[in-house]
Amino acid sequence: MDAHPPVRLLIHGATGRMGQALLRLCREETTGCEVVAAVARRVDTRVVDGVPRFTAAELSGVPAFDVAIDFSLPEGFDAILALCVARGTALVSGTTGLSDAQKAALDAASTTIPLAWASNFSLGVAVLHDLVERAAKLLPGWDCDIVEAHHTRKLDAPSGTALTLGTAAQAGGADPHYASIRAGDIVGEHLVQFAAAGERIELVHRATNRDIFARGALHAAARLNARAPGRYRVADLL
Amino acid sequence: MDAHPPVRLLIHGATGRMGQALLRLCREETTGCEVVAAVARRVDTRVVDGVPRFTAAELSGVPAFDVAIDFSLPEGFDAILALCVARGTALVSGTTGLSDAQKAALDAASTTIPLAWASNFSLGVAVLHDLVERAAKLLPGWDCDIVEAHHTRKLDAPSGTALTLGTAAQAGGADPHYASIRAGDIVGEHLVQFAAAGERIELVHRATNRDIFARGALHAAARLNARAPGRYRVADLL
Amino acid sequence: MDAHPPVRLLIHGATGRMGQALLRLCREETTGCEVVAAVARRVDTRVVDGVPRFTAAELSGVPAFDVAIDFSLPEGFDAILALCVARGTALVSGTTGLSDAQKAALDAASTTIPLAWASNFSLGVAVLHDLVERAAKLLPGWDCDIVEAHHTRKLDAPSGTALTLGTAAQAGGADPHYASIRAGDIVGEHLVQFAAAGERIELVHRATNRDIFARGALHAAARLNARAPGRYRVADLL
Amino acid sequence: MDAHPPVRLLIHGATGRMGQALLRLCREETTGCEVVAAVARRVDTRVVDGVPRFTAAELSGVPAFDVAIDFSLPEGFDAILALCVARGTALVSGTTGLSDAQKAALDAASTTIPLAWASNFSLGVAVLHDLVERAAKLLPGWDCDIVEAHHTRKLDAPSGTALTLGTAAQAGGADPHYASIRAGDIVGEHLVQFAAAGERIELVHRATNRDIFARGALHAAARLNARAPGRYRVADLL
Repeated sequence: MDAHPPVRLLIHGATGRMGQALLRLCREETTGCEVVAAVARRVDTRVVDGVPRFTAAELSGVPAFDVAIDFSLPEGFDAILALCVARGTALVSGTTGLSDAQKAALDAASTTIPLAWASNFSLGVAVLHDLVERAAKLLPGWDCDIVEAHHTRKLDAPSGTALTLGTAAQAGGADPHYASIRAGDIVGEHLVQFAAAGERIELVHRATNRDIFARGALHAAARLNARAPGRYRVADLL
Repeated sequence: MDAHPPVRLLIHGATGRMGQALLRLCREETTGCEVVAAVARRVDTRVVDGVPRFTAAELSGVPAFDVAIDFSLPEGFDAILALCVARGTALVSGTTGLSDAQKAALDAASTTIPLAWASNFSLGVAVLHDLVERAAKLLPGWDCDIVEAHHTRKLDAPSGTALTLGTAAQAGGADPHYASIRAGDIVGEHLVQFAAAGERIELVHRATNRDIFARGALHAAARLNARAPGRYRVADLL
Repeated sequence: MDAHPPVRLLIHGATGRMGQALLRLCREETTGCEVVAAVARRVDTRVVDGVPRFTAAELSGVPAFDVAIDFSLPEGFDAILALCVARGTALVSGTTGLSDAQKAALDAASTTIPLAWASNFSLGVAVLHDLVERAAKLLPGWDCDIVEAHHTRKLDAPSGTALTLGTAAQAGGADPHYASIRAGDIVGEHLVQFAAAGERIELVHRATNRDIFARGALHAAARLNARAPGRYRVADLL
Repeated sequence: MDAHPPVRLLIHGATGRMGQALLRLCREETTGCEVVAAVARRVDTRVVDGVPRFTAAELSGVPAFDVAIDFSLPEGFDAILALCVARGTALVSGTTGLSDAQKAALDAASTTIPLAWASNFSLGVAVLHDLVERAAKLLPGWDCDIVEAHHTRKLDAPSGTALTLGTAAQAGGADPHYASIRAGDIVGEHLVQFAAAGERIELVHRATNRDIFARGALHAAARLNARAPGRYRVADLL
């Protein structure tokens, strides 16, 4: 008998690629989560697969939830952050392109609710982040290079994940250089290399299925639920 | 002004490939070490490049030293271990093929002198060892595979280093499988892969120059000098 | 103006994983092909998405077609081969586990119809096959190793594709050795390495989406249509 | 009994890194070549290891030779080219940084003597060149990326070899993009990747010992000897 009731989720950005993946995984897999509200800018039908739908304009009227997962756009971010603070619920967000004011609002909100923002919620990337910082500390003076590869529709370079890995390398004392490849439909690959005379260490993450990002966000939501207020990294929620 | 006098080394197995590399590096690089005795089964000349030479039969008569570095054969191992215990000096050994009795003697000696035995003294492999154990802990349930590649003259498979990495993976809870490649003159490459649905982490070490093994042994000797008795891993001496 | 009428396809094994992918791609992409009959052992409804369905028992009554694509089981293979010979149409088959008698029947049929059988219809693997044979010819005396990685549900090892690549290496004069990894949900990766003193060449194919196999079979079907009788390799149909 | 007399070599640039390697290999290995003159800007002793030494100023007085191998500087290039034309002997050159006038002189000389100029004489890179052009032809529309890695003392990027591989890819119809890594003491690694939806091909060369470049130049010299006048690529001399 499982004593834990399911974590009640609000999905913000329900019609986007990540929102769709989150809804599908909650329907098809055992996640320990239950979607109680799916919010999008526009809604065609009120219930899909048993999940009530709400427009952005109806956000204040959603039922009780434990954690909001937000993969939307900067325009909608302020509203979901305000709702979480008002309700005292946790927030997991992967919305990119936030303004400095919005980032400051995130920090301010973390004094009253638990929240996690990341450019990449895969478990593997979180672990790589941890390993890179550790390797950089143990290999002082080694050259550090980060190479990332993504599909040709990705416009920004280096990827946000590569920059985050670079921050981890810097935290360990390294001075990373970056290279980017845009080719085919590569989901996402990151190589962090440390090199010295006569030897090299290569730390690589390869994503082959986008579902890992949605699965990681669900995992983070389950772990963030009922935590103390604060700002958490994915690595803190492993 | 450097307050540290050089660490006085005895090189045991001085005419072997590792012994030759150790003598050359001490001559050519700034290692903080000074070779005071080079011991081999047979000795043609009494002094080479300023280093006094001794045969195995003359071992008991070598001058005072701080650390013995031993890359020899199981036949000569008992004598150098006994000398270190008798003199109360540290021992760094990479001699492979030790019997169970010799391994037990190593453990017994560690109650009175500091010693480090390893199949691979490169800094990179020591760091990889650390990263593999950590990754295995953070990735429960992921498949773990270890692939190693070496030159065609290497007869044993998997390599001792691959097995040591496998032990690290097991310490973290993984169940590794092994594959071996023997090709060309590859100095030594080790890949530890962790795989789950939709993503993978690959941790790789590539050695391209054998000097890293000798340099690592010298580094271990310098760090082991003046430590408390005990058995140290390379990772403990980083 | 496109002067070519679509190639009329019969899909044999329509309810299997490859059959489903073939039907979906013909529906969603511009392939130059039109499915006129989908054949499976059992059929629930007579028409799905505009494609008429037939049971194996009804095979002789299917309408006119240009090429049959068969990804079924050895039990059903004799019937589809006989139909293609009787109708004088081309056959593309990826059915594995054929008996020696069935392989002989394939060869015999190739005197009257064009046919292509392969364990892997991806364009990339066909090209790799070509490159491996060429590299082996240009690198006499180099060591050759083939490493393949697939998902954990794959039971046979080495993979059929690895063995086919090995045949290409042997045709070029090399003597390949094999290693296999079973991990996560890896779709399929093949590395062919050539090594000599001081240098190495690695030729790698990575499949990240199973659709490439179905797309390759459709490509082969379009190229095989209206060819002279004979047995063709995927490389012949590039 | 070997009916071939040794190929008589002139080494131009004898005190450089490549010149030293050429002299050492001719002394230590069976190459089918004999060095009859070693030329450098300055010469301390007249004969080293049985090889007569000449200064650049004495170039016109060297004894009869079959092939000149030149790894020197642009300043000395005109003199060795003129000598080969005057004597009617073959020329193998790896001197980089030639001016447009010097390149034109190379082309003009090729109407009277056989010559080969390349930025990289390793056998593996020559084969990779061949495979890349072939892959590019067989994979129209695939994305092409070239990543090269070298030691930190290498200042130019992309490497000359990467650019040559890019020319091969272009000859096959591809449009390559480049990325460069400078780290540790990496001798030289080149990756040419072709990517499409769902699959990728990676063609890699890894050099781990600089001797392969000297060995390749000696191989080219032996093959170039007694050929018809003309300009040859390394691939033509396999």
